[in-house]
Amino acid sequence: MSLLLSVSQIRGPILTQLRSSTSIFTRKMSSIEQFKQSPHKLLVIPGPIEVSDEVLFANAHPSMSHVSPDFIPVLGDCIRMTRTVVDTAKGQPFLIAGSGTLGWDQIAANLVEPGENALVLHSGYFGDSFAECLETYGANVDQLKAEIGAAVSQEAIAEALGKKKYKLLTFTHVDTSTAVLSDAKAIVETVRRVSPETLVALDGVCSVASEEIHMDQWDVDVIITASQKGLGTPPGLSILVASVRAMQVFSSRKSRPTSYYGSWKKWLPVMQAYESGKPSYFATPPVNLIYAFHASLSKITKSSPSLAERYELHRDASRKVKAAAQELGLKQLPLDPAFAANGMTALWYPDGLSAGDILPRLVKKGIVVAGGLHVDVKDKYFRIGHMGITAVEKSRGDVDAVVKALGETLAEAAAEKLKQANLRFGPLKDNGLMMKARL
Amino acid sequence: MSLLLSVSQIRGPILTQLRSSTSIFTRKMSSIEQFKQSPHKLLVIPGPIEVSDEVLFANAHPSMSHVSPDFIPVLGDCIRMTRTVVDTAKGQPFLIAGSGTLGWDQIAANLVEPGENALVLHSGYFGDSFAECLETYGANVDQLKAEIGAAVSQEAIAEALGKKKYKLLTFTHVDTSTAVLSDAKAIVETVRRVSPETLVALDGVCSVASEEIHMDQWDVDVIITASQKGLGTPPGLSILVASVRAMQVFSSRKSRPTSYYGSWKKWLPVMQAYESGKPSYFATPPVNLIYAFHASLSKITKSSPSLAERYELHRDASRKVKAAAQELGLKQLPLDPAFAANGMTALWYPDGLSAGDILPRLVKKGIVVAGGLHVDVKDKYFRIGHMGITAVEKSRGDVDAVVKALGETLAEAAAEKLKQANLRFGPLKDNGLMMKARL
Repeated sequence: MSLLLSVSQIRGPILTQLRSSTSIFTRKMSSIEQFKQSPHKLLVIPGPIEVSDEVLFANAHPSMSHVSPDFIPVLGDCIRMTRTVVDTAKGQPFLIAGSGTLGWDQIAANLVEPGENALVLHSGYFGDSFAECLETYGANVDQLKAEIGAAVSQEAIAEALGKKKYKLLTFTHVDTSTAVLSDAKAIVETVRRVSPETLVALDGVCSVASEEIHMDQWDVDVIITASQKGLGTPPGLSILVASVRAMQVFSSRKSRPTSYYGSWKKWLPVMQAYESGKPSYFATPPVNLIYAFHASLSKITKSSPSLAERYELHRDASRKVKAAAQELGLKQLPLDPAFAANGMTALWYPDGLSAGDILPRLVKKGIVVAGGLHVDVKDKYFRIGHMGITAVEKSRGDVDAVVKALGETLAEAAAEKLKQANLRFGPLKDNGLMMKARL
Repeated sequence: MSLLLSVSQIRGPILTQLRSSTSIFTRKMSSIEQFKQSPHKLLVIPGPIEVSDEVLFANAHPSMSHVSPDFIPVLGDCIRMTRTVVDTAKGQPFLIAGSGTLGWDQIAANLVEPGENALVLHSGYFGDSFAECLETYGANVDQLKAEIGAAVSQEAIAEALGKKKYKLLTFTHVDTSTAVLSDAKAIVETVRRVSPETLVALDGVCSVASEEIHMDQWDVDVIITASQKGLGTPPGLSILVASVRAMQVFSSRKSRPTSYYGSWKKWLPVMQAYESGKPSYFATPPVNLIYAFHASLSKITKSSPSLAERYELHRDASRKVKAAAQELGLKQLPLDPAFAANGMTALWYPDGLSAGDILPRLVKKGIVVAGGLHVDVKDKYFRIGHMGITAVEKSRGDVDAVVKALGETLAEAAAEKLKQANLRFGPLKDNGLMMKARL
């Protein structure tokens, strides 16, 4: 108590905080105003991305019953806000503990019956995997493959659809392995023109909330995504939205869904119950992650900047990173700027430099980027993510920090190479690397 | 700065905390010493359970790359500590984003080939669901059903195994819907005696870390569980351990696994890589939840109390709750005390009282228990969980709080009924309820 008296000489927020805590000695922090995540390196890989203090604090919510009256509306709100994010009025969201990959299983097990045909548009690593997933559940899969850095052309799509009847067409909106952004609107237009009944599934794991998406207006049938990219939440949530058409196709299927955990027969009543404020049970939802997702979705859909402004801020961040890369002589994987993602950038290492020259130097500067992922060229490029708060909250200075660190890194790496070359061969003339790095 | 001077009159931890923060006005807290979860009702349902501040703080870890050198050993450690928890030297753990239910899919899709026979021992709700899951992936399933409150007898198991060849036998170690604890050791002994090649799967969602389990010694082939019960972590992680025998059966299967997201072909290399300290990728692990799981597993397997002491503490808590219930005249669902779980208690409502009389009163006293779940008797009983820190950290006083609130609640509910009866029929003699509630 005598201690409290001396503390009382201090006015304002400190005093309030001291008084409101259980003990002024152990003074524990249990409100968001008082929570701040630990210092850490800036995470600018194409997911998981940087997560705000608010969202992380929500992930540390006290344990709650999954059927409690306090939790039910939180999941209900998440279902509604998920609709808003993909711009649909009547699409049916499914929020299930899992990774983005589980979305593929959901599509394969609920929308395709064994023996039916599926067409996979391939603009990188994730096309192959999606195709393999569909085959696992009995689909006959054809792939249309674009060269590395390109998206499949509308002509090729139209031709394939004209030759065979497909139940489903899938494409990766942004292939995280190549940063290629497919033209979702044009793809659906082609499908509706040539084969109107074919369902169109958009893999939006690396695009939802960072690239413009209008599910209803574009007439997309299924969108799958995950929590840890544009949606700014820790990983662990599979997010899927099915159109009215997709749900009709589902409910008229002849055989039962070929997955149990991913069965919409099980999940649809649960989603409907939670949305209408009632408890229901199939499998325990990831309660804490749903609180975190709620915090992030509230920011994205109900506060400033608006969704439209958010997309523009992602385009801004993207232009800045891509311009800086060009300035440094780095080439993008996407062959055409029109097909480059706005939430990430994939860059070839400059001649003479490799992952070992670049990535550890960036880490030393506190910046974590990602190596390559596309099997054929894995060791030849790296990837930078600029989604969520990194793109949207300019005051954080993330994009500037990345650009600065990238410039310094290339200069250092080039200088080091030059030094090694000089040591081995004696003084050499500038071999071009120095120019590219623009010291 | 002048403010800092006046603060400096205070000595000890407060000063250190104030100085270590970025600003003394907004003083944000970013270390576990400073984190405390928000005040909340005591959660004593049979999962999710109360989670410690340490584990919740780990769940709020800054976002990290799933392939970073900092994260890889964290997942690697979790794999090793999962082995310790189920007491196996060579079992293969699989840690995948999902709920406990995903463990059934993994078993059905990896260990059973379409057309093979499976025998499901049914001691409650979860037997039916597991059976349906196995059928989804093409198994021919027979169920051996015990009456409500009982476990299937060894004689019945031996008889069934003698009649037909089964690839797999499954049982729910603790059925969360009935609190029936099956005798795992005896079940495996029966199987090895009658049908030694049959794989035995233990559904330990409601038993791992709260009921004694010795995977190797008992010769169990698969154990599935989830993060949110005895393991004291938020929900969202499917945890499975497969024996050497199970992995051999898996690797010699003729058809490919019938799930993609749950395919061990995909996950085995990933688990092996992380355990040996190398990055690998199939689907993004739930990074934050893995940090939380790591915090909880470290406490469970590497600190005091030991695992053996932990089981004893669960038995202690269980005895206390069950004795208090008996004292109050409440009967357990399990017909035989030898088959009652130690991590939870299921109790019939006393005559004349129902959920509406009991559960809301407990909530008003800050105690959240669970209603019934077994379809046939859903509205006739309720369930109390006493797992994890609620059972182990006696200083929290959780069990005492539950016992006290339960006694008060029954007395109030009985008094209220008596009052209503008196109002309707005029003064009545004690109708037995008051006696049962032991005011």
